[in-house]
Amino acid sequence: MQTISVIGGSGELGGGLALRWARAGFAVIIGSRDADRAQQVADELNAATGSTLAKGMQNYAAAEAGDIVLLAVKFSHHKATLEELKPALRGKILIDTTVPLVPPKVARAQLPPEGSAAVIAQKVLGGDVDVVSAFQNVSAELLQSDERPECDVLVTGAKPDARQTVIELAEKAGFKAWHAGPLENSAATEALTSVLIFMNKKYSSGHAGISITGIDAD
Amino acid sequence: MQTISVIGGSGELGGGLALRWARAGFAVIIGSRDADRAQQVADELNAATGSTLAKGMQNYAAAEAGDIVLLAVKFSHHKATLEELKPALRGKILIDTTVPLVPPKVARAQLPPEGSAAVIAQKVLGGDVDVVSAFQNVSAELLQSDERPECDVLVTGAKPDARQTVIELAEKAGFKAWHAGPLENSAATEALTSVLIFMNKKYSSGHAGISITGIDAD
Repeated sequence: MQTISVIGGSGELGGGLALRWARAGFAVIIGSRDADRAQQVADELNAATGSTLAKGMQNYAAAEAGDIVLLAVKFSHHKATLEELKPALRGKILIDTTVPLVPPKVARAQLPPEGSAAVIAQKVLGGDVDVVSAFQNVSAELLQSDERPECDVLVTGAKPDARQTVIELAEKAGFKAWHAGPLENSAATEALTSVLIFMNKKYSSGHAGISITGIDAD
Repeated sequence: MQTISVIGGSGELGGGLALRWARAGFAVIIGSRDADRAQQVADELNAATGSTLAKGMQNYAAAEAGDIVLLAVKFSHHKATLEELKPALRGKILIDTTVPLVPPKVARAQLPPEGSAAVIAQKVLGGDVDVVSAFQNVSAELLQSDERPECDVLVTGAKPDARQTVIELAEKAGFKAWHAGPLENSAATEALTSVLIFMNKKYSSGHAGISITGIDAD
């Protein structure tokens, strides 16, 4: 089975996905800027799953050790982190979960001039890395539970095979996941996060998400 | 009851929404660049509903006659149409349904530098018009049936009252509709249309749409 490294694995989204993948039997590596913090999160994760599937490492070592690498850092650290990790990502799939939120107005979509965070990632990493964008619309809190999240995952990227790999990983984490087109379509999922943040304030009771209707995944 | 004018009412989306509103008892005005064509569509609509609720007019006269005006033209005509209609829209709600598709790659999100078509509309029309963005993700074909469409409508705009008016109109047309935040969040709905076009090609059997999960509209 593949080893999945989660850069920013001490954060809510990264840590929640790592937990779900460890539960599904994957070896996961928690990456953090602080190796001690990474190991602490990995220890907690192993305690929660009753396994030894998680290890903690500093971000660069984590990126080197993973077969597939997921990036879950704030937009303000996105580009610098990618530039740092670039040599370690060659030949791999980089799953970018970044949403280009501009605090304090996080309920307002403010996409970057390049089009999306994922498009920036592909530009920084170049053609040797398959950037696939996913998980922007997932509530990190819901990942902590055992339940199947109500939110579908839209997966965008240039290469259908790389998208398919990420769709299968999303399914292992308990999600319904879909091919959502080329990487440029991450503009939709990234902007949609601000819509969902707005809805969570406007409407009561819950974690807003989306579900695709009208078609069958077959 | 309010009169709803549909600019581009001879097109599939505009004509389908006009049909649903006429069925719900609204007076609707079909606007087209060609007054004869507009009247022909209005006659067909009256025949379909067994009423005389629809009239046809040239676009400018239609915009003048409507209490609320919906714009359903191609992106290539979007800005010029708004500039033409601007004097007739003063003090009204303009519902912008435009998706900034760039043929031939319509399954690839390519938002304009301004952020979205709806943001362009507000810039062209200025502060005297309340631009509200909606209906981007609706399959025009499904509007022809009597059935409740499976696709939710995300409504964005600067003013909550204007959004609420459009939400109620969407409900009269048979949709579940939601406050989705400021007008800038139309980037999400506009880009999502390319995702849904992609999915309709990739997956079999249907009209892809979205549904909001995890929260209650109350």
